[in-house]
Amino acid sequence: MKIVLIGSGNVATQMGLSIRALGENIVQVYSQNIKNAIQLAGQVDAVPVTDYKKISREADLYIISIKDDAIAHAAEALKGVDGLVVHTAGTVDLTVLSAQVKNAGVFYPLQTFSKTRPVNFKTVPLCIEATDKTQLEVLKKMAQRLSQQVYELNGEKRKALHLAAVFACNFTNHLYALSNQILEKNHIDFEIIRPLIIETAEKIAHNLPENVQTGPAVRGDEETINTHLTALKRMPELYNIYQTLSNSIKKTYK
Amino acid sequence: MKIVLIGSGNVATQMGLSIRALGENIVQVYSQNIKNAIQLAGQVDAVPVTDYKKISREADLYIISIKDDAIAHAAEALKGVDGLVVHTAGTVDLTVLSAQVKNAGVFYPLQTFSKTRPVNFKTVPLCIEATDKTQLEVLKKMAQRLSQQVYELNGEKRKALHLAAVFACNFTNHLYALSNQILEKNHIDFEIIRPLIIETAEKIAHNLPENVQTGPAVRGDEETINTHLTALKRMPELYNIYQTLSNSIKKTYK
Repeated sequence: MKIVLIGSGNVATQMGLSIRALGENIVQVYSQNIKNAIQLAGQVDAVPVTDYKKISREADLYIISIKDDAIAHAAEALKGVDGLVVHTAGTVDLTVLSAQVKNAGVFYPLQTFSKTRPVNFKTVPLCIEATDKTQLEVLKKMAQRLSQQVYELNGEKRKALHLAAVFACNFTNHLYALSNQILEKNHIDFEIIRPLIIETAEKIAHNLPENVQTGPAVRGDEETINTHLTALKRMPELYNIYQTLSNSIKKTYK
Repeated sequence: MKIVLIGSGNVATQMGLSIRALGENIVQVYSQNIKNAIQLAGQVDAVPVTDYKKISREADLYIISIKDDAIAHAAEALKGVDGLVVHTAGTVDLTVLSAQVKNAGVFYPLQTFSKTRPVNFKTVPLCIEATDKTQLEVLKKMAQRLSQQVYELNGEKRKALHLAAVFACNFTNHLYALSNQILEKNHIDFEIIRPLIIETAEKIAHNLPENVQTGPAVRGDEETINTHLTALKRMPELYNIYQTLSNSIKKTYK
């Protein structure tokens, strides 16, 4: 199978490395940034390309892993190819591809990626979708070689999942950052709170989060809540978030 | 060392089990609820007690691990004892104890506890404070036998830490729960999002959260934000939280 990787960001990098590790043949890596193209191409033994016109028309699989709003343009550049063209985005419709190419699909890994932190794809849920059953089977085979968790999800469900992921990952990380703002203001090292963060995440490995909620808001401990709000008077941003989330917890468990 | 455990909740249970596992002698477990007193006492080879008057006056260490607003009353009941009296609360002043007893301290474990999920105390940061150096040394010795992470923290810092923990743990778990609300509404199993939650927490083991923030808000991806807000129109609670946290992320990284 000849594969073309379009993109060189966090997802493209981790996915490219994992696919290459399976022994697959990545023929080209496209990036509009020549440095990035060369760097990732070097890591996956592919040829770097910076011009859509230079992309091979003969590949079996094209993986588009670039910014959401650039996907349509990439699909347009692939118009007429016979290979399967997939994107890796959570919120982009399959039709953005299928409007341009015959065989289209989605290959969405539900994980947070950095270029430098290696990811074990075996544990990354892969959500797949395709224009027809034949293509779906092709995608499924590749997905199952990469990951132990493969889900067939339509676009609507995939979008809901992406939204849920914003709460569970992006917003959660922001809470860690806000927590660190409080610590820094009080000259306490972030190190002290890391075990709590890990345990909070691991606790829901065998529980649903709504069954293990703790803290002043779920206890209805107004005294502690008021002490905390008073302590946050000079951090209006955190005050507002403390109040919003505490009220939401109270409503949820009342 | 003779130890009396006052309380039978999540913290008292996990701390009692860990102290007993060190080979220490827990002589009594107090709880106003006889069932709980008997259950925990049985687990740590102690005598259950439900009346403050029955608590031994001869113990070396009294660990009060009950609701914040009940601590003062427990301290009053221990008036006149020579042993060291500590509480395990994040936001309660040491003076609540020292107003009643000669030797007082704080022994605050920064972790989220459940009765049924065993905790490895070795990795739990223990924050200690005492009325004088001699008592602090006693506490420190015990703390260092229980945990590899012992911190001397005054009341002000301990309270700030507790507040930071509400963001990093309680609010974070609520975000997991909100995430699951979206999943349930779309008939998607929570299982699919667990690897993301774990990775989000593990990612900050060697990074500060502000250096690894991802998602539409930090990218300034207004299109995705608007798509998400539209999807949340019928979930006003989540709509509000999505907007509040996205705005906070934008402000933080602008």
